[in-house]
Amino acid sequence: MTSKKRFKHMLPSVRQRKARSKKPGTAPGTIEHIGERHLDEIKITVYDYDEADFQELPIDQIQKVQPYLDAPSKTWIKVNGLHDTEKLKSIWNYFELHPLIQEDIVNTSQRPKVESYDNCIFFVLRMLTYSGDEKKLKTEQISIVLGQNYVMSFQETDEDYFKPIMDRLTVEGSRIRKLNTDYLTYALLDAVVDHYYNIIEHIADDIETLEDELLEEPDEHLLEQIHQIRREIIYFRKSVWPLRDAINSTIRDESKFISSNTKIFLRDVYDHMVQVIDNIENYRDLILGLHDMYMSFVSNRMNEVMKVLTIIATIFIPLTFIAGIYGMNFDPEISPYNMPELSWYWGYPASLGVMGIVAIIMVIYFKRKGWF
Amino acid sequence: MTSKKRFKHMLPSVRQRKARSKKPGTAPGTIEHIGERHLDEIKITVYDYDEADFQELPIDQIQKVQPYLDAPSKTWIKVNGLHDTEKLKSIWNYFELHPLIQEDIVNTSQRPKVESYDNCIFFVLRMLTYSGDEKKLKTEQISIVLGQNYVMSFQETDEDYFKPIMDRLTVEGSRIRKLNTDYLTYALLDAVVDHYYNIIEHIADDIETLEDELLEEPDEHLLEQIHQIRREIIYFRKSVWPLRDAINSTIRDESKFISSNTKIFLRDVYDHMVQVIDNIENYRDLILGLHDMYMSFVSNRMNEVMKVLTIIATIFIPLTFIAGIYGMNFDPEISPYNMPELSWYWGYPASLGVMGIVAIIMVIYFKRKGWF
Amino acid sequence: MTSKKRFKHMLPSVRQRKARSKKPGTAPGTIEHIGERHLDEIKITVYDYDEADFQELPIDQIQKVQPYLDAPSKTWIKVNGLHDTEKLKSIWNYFELHPLIQEDIVNTSQRPKVESYDNCIFFVLRMLTYSGDEKKLKTEQISIVLGQNYVMSFQETDEDYFKPIMDRLTVEGSRIRKLNTDYLTYALLDAVVDHYYNIIEHIADDIETLEDELLEEPDEHLLEQIHQIRREIIYFRKSVWPLRDAINSTIRDESKFISSNTKIFLRDVYDHMVQVIDNIENYRDLILGLHDMYMSFVSNRMNEVMKVLTIIATIFIPLTFIAGIYGMNFDPEISPYNMPELSWYWGYPASLGVMGIVAIIMVIYFKRKGWF
Amino acid sequence: MTSKKRFKHMLPSVRQRKARSKKPGTAPGTIEHIGERHLDEIKITVYDYDEADFQELPIDQIQKVQPYLDAPSKTWIKVNGLHDTEKLKSIWNYFELHPLIQEDIVNTSQRPKVESYDNCIFFVLRMLTYSGDEKKLKTEQISIVLGQNYVMSFQETDEDYFKPIMDRLTVEGSRIRKLNTDYLTYALLDAVVDHYYNIIEHIADDIETLEDELLEEPDEHLLEQIHQIRREIIYFRKSVWPLRDAINSTIRDESKFISSNTKIFLRDVYDHMVQVIDNIENYRDLILGLHDMYMSFVSNRMNEVMKVLTIIATIFIPLTFIAGIYGMNFDPEISPYNMPELSWYWGYPASLGVMGIVAIIMVIYFKRKGWF
Amino acid sequence: MTSKKRFKHMLPSVRQRKARSKKPGTAPGTIEHIGERHLDEIKITVYDYDEADFQELPIDQIQKVQPYLDAPSKTWIKVNGLHDTEKLKSIWNYFELHPLIQEDIVNTSQRPKVESYDNCIFFVLRMLTYSGDEKKLKTEQISIVLGQNYVMSFQETDEDYFKPIMDRLTVEGSRIRKLNTDYLTYALLDAVVDHYYNIIEHIADDIETLEDELLEEPDEHLLEQIHQIRREIIYFRKSVWPLRDAINSTIRDESKFISSNTKIFLRDVYDHMVQVIDNIENYRDLILGLHDMYMSFVSNRMNEVMKVLTIIATIFIPLTFIAGIYGMNFDPEISPYNMPELSWYWGYPASLGVMGIVAIIMVIYFKRKGWF
Repeated sequence: MTSKKRFKHMLPSVRQRKARSKKPGTAPGTIEHIGERHLDEIKITVYDYDEADFQELPIDQIQKVQPYLDAPSKTWIKVNGLHDTEKLKSIWNYFELHPLIQEDIVNTSQRPKVESYDNCIFFVLRMLTYSGDEKKLKTEQISIVLGQNYVMSFQETDEDYFKPIMDRLTVEGSRIRKLNTDYLTYALLDAVVDHYYNIIEHIADDIETLEDELLEEPDEHLLEQIHQIRREIIYFRKSVWPLRDAINSTIRDESKFISSNTKIFLRDVYDHMVQVIDNIENYRDLILGLHDMYMSFVSNRMNEVMKVLTIIATIFIPLTFIAGIYGMNFDPEISPYNMPELSWYWGYPASLGVMGIVAIIMVIYFKRKGWF
Repeated sequence: MTSKKRFKHMLPSVRQRKARSKKPGTAPGTIEHIGERHLDEIKITVYDYDEADFQELPIDQIQKVQPYLDAPSKTWIKVNGLHDTEKLKSIWNYFELHPLIQEDIVNTSQRPKVESYDNCIFFVLRMLTYSGDEKKLKTEQISIVLGQNYVMSFQETDEDYFKPIMDRLTVEGSRIRKLNTDYLTYALLDAVVDHYYNIIEHIADDIETLEDELLEEPDEHLLEQIHQIRREIIYFRKSVWPLRDAINSTIRDESKFISSNTKIFLRDVYDHMVQVIDNIENYRDLILGLHDMYMSFVSNRMNEVMKVLTIIATIFIPLTFIAGIYGMNFDPEISPYNMPELSWYWGYPASLGVMGIVAIIMVIYFKRKGWF
Repeated sequence: MTSKKRFKHMLPSVRQRKARSKKPGTAPGTIEHIGERHLDEIKITVYDYDEADFQELPIDQIQKVQPYLDAPSKTWIKVNGLHDTEKLKSIWNYFELHPLIQEDIVNTSQRPKVESYDNCIFFVLRMLTYSGDEKKLKTEQISIVLGQNYVMSFQETDEDYFKPIMDRLTVEGSRIRKLNTDYLTYALLDAVVDHYYNIIEHIADDIETLEDELLEEPDEHLLEQIHQIRREIIYFRKSVWPLRDAINSTIRDESKFISSNTKIFLRDVYDHMVQVIDNIENYRDLILGLHDMYMSFVSNRMNEVMKVLTIIATIFIPLTFIAGIYGMNFDPEISPYNMPELSWYWGYPASLGVMGIVAIIMVIYFKRKGWF
Repeated sequence: MTSKKRFKHMLPSVRQRKARSKKPGTAPGTIEHIGERHLDEIKITVYDYDEADFQELPIDQIQKVQPYLDAPSKTWIKVNGLHDTEKLKSIWNYFELHPLIQEDIVNTSQRPKVESYDNCIFFVLRMLTYSGDEKKLKTEQISIVLGQNYVMSFQETDEDYFKPIMDRLTVEGSRIRKLNTDYLTYALLDAVVDHYYNIIEHIADDIETLEDELLEEPDEHLLEQIHQIRREIIYFRKSVWPLRDAINSTIRDESKFISSNTKIFLRDVYDHMVQVIDNIENYRDLILGLHDMYMSFVSNRMNEVMKVLTIIATIFIPLTFIAGIYGMNFDPEISPYNMPELSWYWGYPASLGVMGIVAIIMVIYFKRKGWF
Repeated sequence: MTSKKRFKHMLPSVRQRKARSKKPGTAPGTIEHIGERHLDEIKITVYDYDEADFQELPIDQIQKVQPYLDAPSKTWIKVNGLHDTEKLKSIWNYFELHPLIQEDIVNTSQRPKVESYDNCIFFVLRMLTYSGDEKKLKTEQISIVLGQNYVMSFQETDEDYFKPIMDRLTVEGSRIRKLNTDYLTYALLDAVVDHYYNIIEHIADDIETLEDELLEEPDEHLLEQIHQIRREIIYFRKSVWPLRDAINSTIRDESKFISSNTKIFLRDVYDHMVQVIDNIENYRDLILGLHDMYMSFVSNRMNEVMKVLTIIATIFIPLTFIAGIYGMNFDPEISPYNMPELSWYWGYPASLGVMGIVAIIMVIYFKRKGWF
């Protein structure tokens, strides 16, 4: 794999980072899906559970969720696919979500945030994963609505990011079954943050590999990799940073939707966020350090190249000059001053001797300078 | 298109960034238009609307707005052109605006801000657009006065930045028709911020193009483009940053002019501002990274050039020296020590052989150094 | 004008920036003039005004100001010259100023600040102007004492920084005549800040010129100018920054000397300060960017020089070697192996041909490398 | 010892810095030991003391601690080894520790922190030591639980970091014997922070050595050492920084577990933390300065190399050219214009003279330039 | 004086900056003198004064101070020397100082701070002076204890830093005699801060000199001086910064030991501290700018060297090649194609002409490039 290829593959495009592109001036709260269509149809799955029971069933109309909401059990409504605005609207209106929530759900380039509304708390998260063989950084917006006795989650694709949580939901007596929907929300948050650790480790691996390669042989393709990791870090930081503050303010604020018991767990997520950001900041410092080291190696190498050139050239240039002198065709017969050395008995050995002495002086001079 | 030309065209001049230039010590609140005259006459347009009705009519005297203000409907007074101070004064005095508001409206190099007065809230915004074929960054100050039941907007030119909002005003039953003037103010703000996304995307495109070109072929004109994007980012940041804080404090402060319902929408604008600034900060980091990468490429290229020179020179300089030796004209007939090699049977092949050996040693040496 | 000369002229000396140099441990509040003596004698001028009247009269003894203080009119006492400590003391004691105020007035290297005392508010400002043909940055400390119904201003020189304010004082019915001494204080502050805009514009011009010259021809003297502007910015920032915070806290604090109406005007000064500092920060970024660009140009130019050297040298060195070969004096008559080429019929053209081929290969190689 | 070897040895691996690697989505509070197993069995040691008595005894079951807890004496339970989750659980459940505490104790890559729970305060510390001959930076997580009348400490290894404290515990009448468990907790904290001073001094030594070596002879291996110290500082900072804030909030918060008397001592620890961080920040600045200096030395050295090459080459290249002229074989007999110099009486001395003059001019030129 | 020598002399060693080195885990409050012994014996001097009287007397036992403490007069107890822990303990216990104060007094590498205790306020200051002919930066810790009606000061050496204050104490009617011990404490603080101005001026002088030398002739030893000033600034900043915040919090906090009148004076010290730190930050920026300028000069100079080499080499290398051609020994008699030029009538002048033309083309080329 050539370095350029690798570079291109792993790059989260700057363009990807562009924000919403709806036409300026369109009505706020305009429901228009900004993103890619991944599924044929929107899938709604209901997970209803309490300490005793658990069931998972796909539904096609949101009205069918009513019996579960009426029951004292807890309900998680998972929605996959965001392209069918009509169907989504039927869901949102059913739960009376604020127009701005609706806009944010389908406009999938939101900044992570937590917002309080009268009838719910609204979370925007950014799931980050490496996908495919080329380890391309992939991002997906996860929107979570925590209402009175339900949780709704929205995502564009069908990816099973929350599989482990579903597994735990099937386990009778597990803490998640005992506790309320705010704990489920916490569990979803925690799953997203856990994925950040994968990214962190991947970046750490890349940096370590870079460091090793740099000490081995500072190649030009390292430069592109340094730049690429720098970009990944910038991108990752941007996706992660806002969530930290959002969670922090959620912990501090009073809310009827989140119990103080769950807040202890949220504090744990917050700690993890802080740790993730700490790491990412350190990696940023490290990558800057690597770039400095790379530049220094390049300078050193050029210095070395220059020294070889200088040593060879400055030794031989004077010698060649001396040889050139005695290659001149002045006619010794016309005048005794015309290159009498050419007719000396020891002329040639003497000239070689002079050259040798010049060379030795040069070598000593360079030794003194510490160039060898 | 040469790079210099492109550079010159896109440059927001430093001089443009200069602030007001009224004579030091002139009375504060002095009404003097600082800016360019774009229109022949000041145009006043009244948009009067409520849930049932909407009408748009140009007026020539501000007194004619009175019936609309008296009616329970909402009124938006749009003023284009800032050069005719007398006419403007008649408007301002009609609404009893504070002298400092008056000064800020005509002095079109204000920092974006939101200020509370007894009888109104005063917004200074900065509209940013790319204009013309050369994509020159253009800026215009938009001043908005939100009073009890009216909104006034002032701008220098005739540009229809708010066309989409007017369109929405014509739609019966639209949210903007139902809600109050504070919502209209929000819509105006939102339209301005939406334009920022265009700039952001334009800068992102430029950076992406730069990155591609840099990986392709690090040319000198890239340097000027890096510097230019850096300047654009600095300029953009300066125009955008203050607005974020101003909106934030507007959300936090109590005001009789802005309802709590509209504040939820302002929070959305605030989120967009934060996202815009996040992006711009990241682009700043990226552009610094690109400059570093450019510098590293230049260093690498110089290193490569040096290596070619060094290899060729250090191989041939000793060989040329040897050839020079045997080009000397010492007389072999005078002494057996004078270049007897010249008369050897295998002299010439031997000398070529010596040269070949020297060259091979050099090549091996450079191979060892990893220079090939 | 050589670059060095220009550099020297415009430099605000580091030494100028030195702080007070009274002997360590001398009593605080020690009245000792630190600065230059500009006037022969201290000049005291009284400006007494109310809505109806205005008079300006020089006095020689501070006691003569009493009638004006007793009258309901507003009084501005302007003091020029700080070298005669005895006379100053008579003024200060007359108004019962705190010893620390006294020390700060004569010790003219104070940081800008605003301090509240029981009987007055004390402002230290720093006036900045460009003086003379060489546009040397000049600085002067302006101390303002705002008491119950008087304002006192102290400065070292006779410069008429406040001329426009005096002019406005002579205009009957002007706002400054109607309002109280706190408004006059605001006007003085505003005049100082207005001068900052001149500096800002001067620096902006310098940066613009630098940018143009840099794109034209990156000369070494640009480096010194970059450094000098950097110094000016550092110096300017230091003089301006503290005032912003001082004014801000003045606005926030309750004080019997400043009315809430005047505070609205102070908020305007504060806005201007913020704008000035915004600009100066941006110029700092720009100047750093210019230095980076300069360095990159130098690198590029060295790269270009290297390429020319390398192309010429690597093309001709092998050719010269070949010519050297056939300049050797091996005796072809002794052995058929001794340079038989010399006696070939096509020997010379063949050798030229070989040289030509070598040269062409080199040229193709460099073309491939993109060095032409 | 080669530099590469030294570099490798002292490096705290980036991978070491990776955070917890439990599977994303696993239940929060999952008890799974993340770390290395250092001991065969978990060791529990009880230190029970009051002013009069002190005893130290290893126990195998946590239930055996009950009599000590019931007694009015103070109890410290030291646990070494974290691999046997079952045994640890028996301890935790005995003291009813929150699941998140349990998770944090075994997951030994926590960020330092202090957390308040209903029945205890939970400290996570990071012990840092240099171990072995190669002075490798070693890190270990120390978890401390301060309950009503007991302190529990958990660590992975058997290292006697707290030996001096145990020694002091054996001294009758010592302050630690008189005061409560919160003072013991303080003593443990203080011991950890004291170890930081060792690291600080080690880094200071390394920097000093680097500085000396840099002034002596700027070698390439210094570069790697600079990078390595930079990494150590980043790593150290990350381990230390969070603790400072945690201790600070502990001092400010009300807690039933920490008396105000002990808080004075905690303030002392806090001061030490601040001092440690101050130092580390300064070292960071210093190491950046060293890198800059290194780069400058390299540039200077290359400059010097270039100068030698340029002087030698530019002196001899013209001379060699002149010699080459007179080595040409034009036939003087055919034309009087064909190199008549060769037949001049003073031809050879004259040519040598010309060469000498050229050389002298060159030397004077370089002297003028200040290159000698 | 060689540059290296100067560098070494002025360097505040990194090792000096090391913090306390007591064994990790030793009891907090352990009284152990960390520092150098400067005096044979500890000297205690009592200064007792009120408005009417002043006396200075050395005492050998602390008990002898009792009568002065009992009297209504104010008492300053100055202690020189910190090596005799026993004697110090007798003093401390006499005044019932907290163990942590005791530890901090003898452990002379404390961070500057102000701490409130029940029976006193404890100040740790850092006196900075240049000592000796080599202007080595010297530091000494000054500890001040402000109790109910006494001030105690502790220092390691016998230096008379406070001489001017003692002088003022002898002056009847001086403010210091009239006011209380808190004013004396302020005077001591002020004396320390006044010394900072000396350092500031010294650094400013160094920077100015450096700037001049840099513009004159950018020598390598400047690099070391830049690094050294950078170190001094880092060191100075570290010593000064904490004091600013400490004084600030002293001003804000209520304390029975400091009157509001004295707080106005402390505010003045605070202002000076802020000014000192402002200056030091600016110097830091300036020194970074100087390093950048140095690097740029080095680059420029290398560029110039390269240009000289390139011009000379590229002009003469082709000429030498041409001369080499006609130095070849092809036999013109064998073939008419073998160097017929050698036998041309105008052969030699023609070859010289060709060389001349090549040289002129080169010169024109370089002129075009702007290399002359």
